[in-house]
Amino acid sequence: MQTPRFPTRLARAGAAAAVWLGLLAGPPAQAAEGMWPLDALPRAQMQQRYGFEPGPGFVDKLMQGSARLGGGCSGSFVSAEGLVLTNHHCITRCLGQLSSAAANRLQDGFVARSRAQELRCPDLEITRLESITDVTAQLRAATAGKQGADFQAAEDALRARLTRECRAGAEDTTRCDLVLLYRGGLAQLYKYRLFSDVRLVWAPEEAIAAFGGDPDNFNFPRWCLDAALLRVYEGGAPAVLRQHLRLQPAGAQAGELVFSSGHPGGTDRQMTTAQLQTLRDELAQNRLPQLAELRGVMLQAARGEGEQRRFALAALQGVENSIKVVGGQLQALLDPALLASKRQAEDELRAFVAARPELTRRVGDPWADIARAQAARRELQALHGLIEDGRAFSGDLFSHARTLVRAAAERPRPDAERLREYSDASLPRLQRRLLAAVPHDPAFEELRLAWSLNRLRSVLGPDDPWVQRVLGRLSPQDRARQLVQGTRMADAAERQRLWQGGAAALAQSDDPFIVLARSIDDAARALRQRFESEVLAVERQAAQRLALAAFERGGPALYPDATGTLRLSYGEVSAVPERGRVVPPFTDLRGLAARATGASPFALPGTWQAALPRLDPAQRLNLSASLDIIGGNSGSPLLNRQGEVVGLVFDGNLGSLGGAFSYDERVNRAIAVHSGAIVEALRSVYAAPGLVAELLPAP
Amino acid sequence: MQTPRFPTRLARAGAAAAVWLGLLAGPPAQAAEGMWPLDALPRAQMQQRYGFEPGPGFVDKLMQGSARLGGGCSGSFVSAEGLVLTNHHCITRCLGQLSSAAANRLQDGFVARSRAQELRCPDLEITRLESITDVTAQLRAATAGKQGADFQAAEDALRARLTRECRAGAEDTTRCDLVLLYRGGLAQLYKYRLFSDVRLVWAPEEAIAAFGGDPDNFNFPRWCLDAALLRVYEGGAPAVLRQHLRLQPAGAQAGELVFSSGHPGGTDRQMTTAQLQTLRDELAQNRLPQLAELRGVMLQAARGEGEQRRFALAALQGVENSIKVVGGQLQALLDPALLASKRQAEDELRAFVAARPELTRRVGDPWADIARAQAARRELQALHGLIEDGRAFSGDLFSHARTLVRAAAERPRPDAERLREYSDASLPRLQRRLLAAVPHDPAFEELRLAWSLNRLRSVLGPDDPWVQRVLGRLSPQDRARQLVQGTRMADAAERQRLWQGGAAALAQSDDPFIVLARSIDDAARALRQRFESEVLAVERQAAQRLALAAFERGGPALYPDATGTLRLSYGEVSAVPERGRVVPPFTDLRGLAARATGASPFALPGTWQAALPRLDPAQRLNLSASLDIIGGNSGSPLLNRQGEVVGLVFDGNLGSLGGAFSYDERVNRAIAVHSGAIVEALRSVYAAPGLVAELLPAP
Repeated sequence: MQTPRFPTRLARAGAAAAVWLGLLAGPPAQAAEGMWPLDALPRAQMQQRYGFEPGPGFVDKLMQGSARLGGGCSGSFVSAEGLVLTNHHCITRCLGQLSSAAANRLQDGFVARSRAQELRCPDLEITRLESITDVTAQLRAATAGKQGADFQAAEDALRARLTRECRAGAEDTTRCDLVLLYRGGLAQLYKYRLFSDVRLVWAPEEAIAAFGGDPDNFNFPRWCLDAALLRVYEGGAPAVLRQHLRLQPAGAQAGELVFSSGHPGGTDRQMTTAQLQTLRDELAQNRLPQLAELRGVMLQAARGEGEQRRFALAALQGVENSIKVVGGQLQALLDPALLASKRQAEDELRAFVAARPELTRRVGDPWADIARAQAARRELQALHGLIEDGRAFSGDLFSHARTLVRAAAERPRPDAERLREYSDASLPRLQRRLLAAVPHDPAFEELRLAWSLNRLRSVLGPDDPWVQRVLGRLSPQDRARQLVQGTRMADAAERQRLWQGGAAALAQSDDPFIVLARSIDDAARALRQRFESEVLAVERQAAQRLALAAFERGGPALYPDATGTLRLSYGEVSAVPERGRVVPPFTDLRGLAARATGASPFALPGTWQAALPRLDPAQRLNLSASLDIIGGNSGSPLLNRQGEVVGLVFDGNLGSLGGAFSYDERVNRAIAVHSGAIVEALRSVYAAPGLVAELLPAP
Repeated sequence: MQTPRFPTRLARAGAAAAVWLGLLAGPPAQAAEGMWPLDALPRAQMQQRYGFEPGPGFVDKLMQGSARLGGGCSGSFVSAEGLVLTNHHCITRCLGQLSSAAANRLQDGFVARSRAQELRCPDLEITRLESITDVTAQLRAATAGKQGADFQAAEDALRARLTRECRAGAEDTTRCDLVLLYRGGLAQLYKYRLFSDVRLVWAPEEAIAAFGGDPDNFNFPRWCLDAALLRVYEGGAPAVLRQHLRLQPAGAQAGELVFSSGHPGGTDRQMTTAQLQTLRDELAQNRLPQLAELRGVMLQAARGEGEQRRFALAALQGVENSIKVVGGQLQALLDPALLASKRQAEDELRAFVAARPELTRRVGDPWADIARAQAARRELQALHGLIEDGRAFSGDLFSHARTLVRAAAERPRPDAERLREYSDASLPRLQRRLLAAVPHDPAFEELRLAWSLNRLRSVLGPDDPWVQRVLGRLSPQDRARQLVQGTRMADAAERQRLWQGGAAALAQSDDPFIVLARSIDDAARALRQRFESEVLAVERQAAQRLALAAFERGGPALYPDATGTLRLSYGEVSAVPERGRVVPPFTDLRGLAARATGASPFALPGTWQAALPRLDPAQRLNLSASLDIIGGNSGSPLLNRQGEVVGLVFDGNLGSLGGAFSYDERVNRAIAVHSGAIVEALRSVYAAPGLVAELLPAP
């Protein structure tokens, strides 16, 4: 398979995208709305509103300068020697892994005073998009006439083949993904340069990175230095980058056109009303209560001491963030206006199809198929989440055990027949994560496992066969203790041994997590198979036909739902209405000093208490801009027309939380760290002149 | 005012009720549906389906034999010397108050071997309904032409006058309530005999009372001995009862007609769709996540040791029960079919009114008024719940402080002008609760207060004036520590001193809880005033006009929404479909033995482990019946046609949780302890032959 290099790929993929971008009927994109693939930017809209049209040089620069972080974040390459700018909250996993009771890098921060002091993140990888190739026709051909499980199997086989061919000859430095846009309407192969040696260069203390904590999260105004620097290495030395983005410490002004270039993880703007209702009920009845309960557990665990407290605080941050995200989505889904507008658009398309017998014959009734899939989804999704997504088995220990058990079964099979995550293309990532030596606290592992096992029993009831298979006659707490105290899964060497030993070693292991993973694996695979064939495959196949109907009808261009792939958003630095008042788009160090009460999460770390009196109180710290972003955009560079980095996106406001389903420019804002604040902090708070010089080389 | 004695009262009140019972249009009550006031039973329906019509003797017996417990439960008088049968879970507060680190009566149970050993519950009171008097005309006259705050004030003034007159001359032994049926369509004065000296006689261990714990809660089949015996005293001696209900240990058979006679706390079957949607959103976004978070805190706190563990376990039980109730209600409200059927009924009534100009003139547009009130409710209810309902200040300590602060201000005022809960009619109850000496664990108080203060900040945001007023510059945890460690509110003698000292003593107190309650009281009263006048008064006044419209239209008889007052439900012992299979209506001791795994909550207490081999394995333990019940019915006697006690209602099944909004006989079941199991436990497990003899005197 051909993987043409930039810029050819844009021309090729763009031709296919141009067809598909025209085909999703619906209200035209609002000004500043949209997460646009780089090969299909809304040039006319941008020109009309801002008198700016991105040229090939601009697009090339963004593509070369944009980084994608494992774990679902974005970043930017900001020096010729491999510096990557991202958010502090995007590297908390790494900071935790590099911490111990003696050195709490999450709480206390870190500065490498030399290259030699830079610390390798055990399992973090960074990728950079190299090319996009349209493979829609191949996917169409492979899946033609297939349904359910067959449809899924054909897609999986094609994915395995395309990604293997894409990586051929450069497996260690290449990642390839099959990306389905428009819920399967368009298929593209994304090829990435892979950096798997990523090192920590600088992280501020969490108290300033997440100043205001959960109370301020998703609010504006804000005063956070949610920034960090990593460095990508190759061959043991800093990677030499052909092109990178340059920091512009002057930042941007109110009303100025700005962009973000990042990897929004997922949106649901093209869901049908039936899907939106299923999601609403799932969030209200399952996800939000589950997160809230976990928050309570972690709040209480964080009152303890020592390692348990450290782990609980780290977990709490993620849980509280998820609660705001899920709560915001739920609020949007409960709003009758949202559902009514989606229903109206749906009714119009349905009437269009019904009036055309030939189209009806080709399209069928995708709404009915999706509705049918919703019944299956409602029946299966809680169980699928608990067992196959592993929510019943919170923590890495079970996840490692399952990976070992499944890898031993999958690796001997032909690539195209394996579970997706065990394909040749996926194995290196999986192996890195499995074998990285990272610290665990047994008490904390036991605590969260007991909670999640209890949740399993709460949701399914004590008489459910799954519950009986997992718990036996033990209480969740006793079972968790038995598993955690008896396991060696926390030991990377033991995992290495079992990985290498394969099926034979696995069969002999009496590690309780291995025994558990082994004992439920057949049933868990059957459950996954049912969920994929009765829910996911049906939904995707119907979505393709919906897209076809919309294409026939015509209508304004529309961007595809976010898929964790590189997208450009555009908008302007602008104020936002919050809780009844208009908040100006900038905050500064004067405001930070005023908000610091001394009580967590409004307490400044010692470095900032010492430095603040010396700093310019007018130095801008955070800003808000009308960019259409969502989770996954964290760490995206905020760019000006020159493609200079004027900020670092780290959050959205409360009004952005409905962004999963629609964009409303009146209330939706991205929140960014001001570029000048980052430079000033490195220079005057963290005394890192070397980093400043690398970021801002003399011209 | 005249308070006629039974049976006259039935004739009088019945006449008014007969009018009103005809006036709520809607689908006719399903067979076995309904929580019927004793003065308006569905005689024709009962006769038609079961060939049984309750005579005056039957009704009189039920009324004399039914008990209402403070805290929202039911019970029955079951001996001539004042024994009251209720649920174990209805007296957990008393059991906790009578416990200490040395004697855990909740966990270990209690049996009084003599009258002298019976232990007084510090603040539990029991009432028995004596008469019902219709006062609709008086309420109509008092509130005629009034709106909002004026409407509310007029109602409050009438309530104070009527209840004061009702109690005149027998204040210590009388309770009177103004009861609004049909959301204000019918007003009645309920007069009760009050027993304020209530003593604990027998309680089994929690492990058998709540066998299966939260996992089994609201499920069927069940195996719980959720029963307890209290005794009402007067003048320091057991009360001598003119009439009581008799236990029938043979129980009832499958298909047999049975009744429950109890005090269902509240239903929302007559809410408009606008109100149902507000409630749905409130449950999904606020109540359920709040409860889930608290569950997490308590789960974790219960892993600790000592007193904190004991308090946390007790709290956990209530929280988990609420989660199932709220979750079940939310599930019903998310079901599109429920809202559609309610909307259809609403549209029909609306069309009926619109077609009649004269009726339109009288009724106005109550739907629009209610919709307007919903906007106010959505704006205010979270804040009102936190501040005025005290959810931000979890625990008794703040509640005591507020009661003291408000009582000092309210008591000097004329009765009719006071806040409802400080009226002459309410003061004795309030004083009993305030001044009872009950144990507190400071660590536990601090823990739950810190959690609820954190919740206050989470919901309102750190910049909210309420948050700033309550927390100052402290974190929730530090503020909770400051309050709990500095207060004397846990000391009943100090509360007594401040109660007697009144305004002068309060003004001098520097107790941090008193200072807090004082500092927010003006604003909290203003908030309450707004909520009552903009939300509650508008909703109630509109509901009266809705009832008027429905009356004009005519239609089948309908029972009023539950109001915590005495109601009769009828149905039959019957199987129920649960999770796809039909569960027979009885469980027995053989099943209990099979389900006992030894791991909590499926572990039997020592008494039962020892006794079970001696007991008849075929002895029935729990049963299910198609009775329309809801929270507040806990402890209701299950009665046969002879008015004998054949069981003790303690729960509903999962299908009963939608009962707040509608009744579905196919899935909705009440769950009861079999009368024979209670007798057998007293005789053969707890060796209490005296109690058995008192319950089953030789004929």
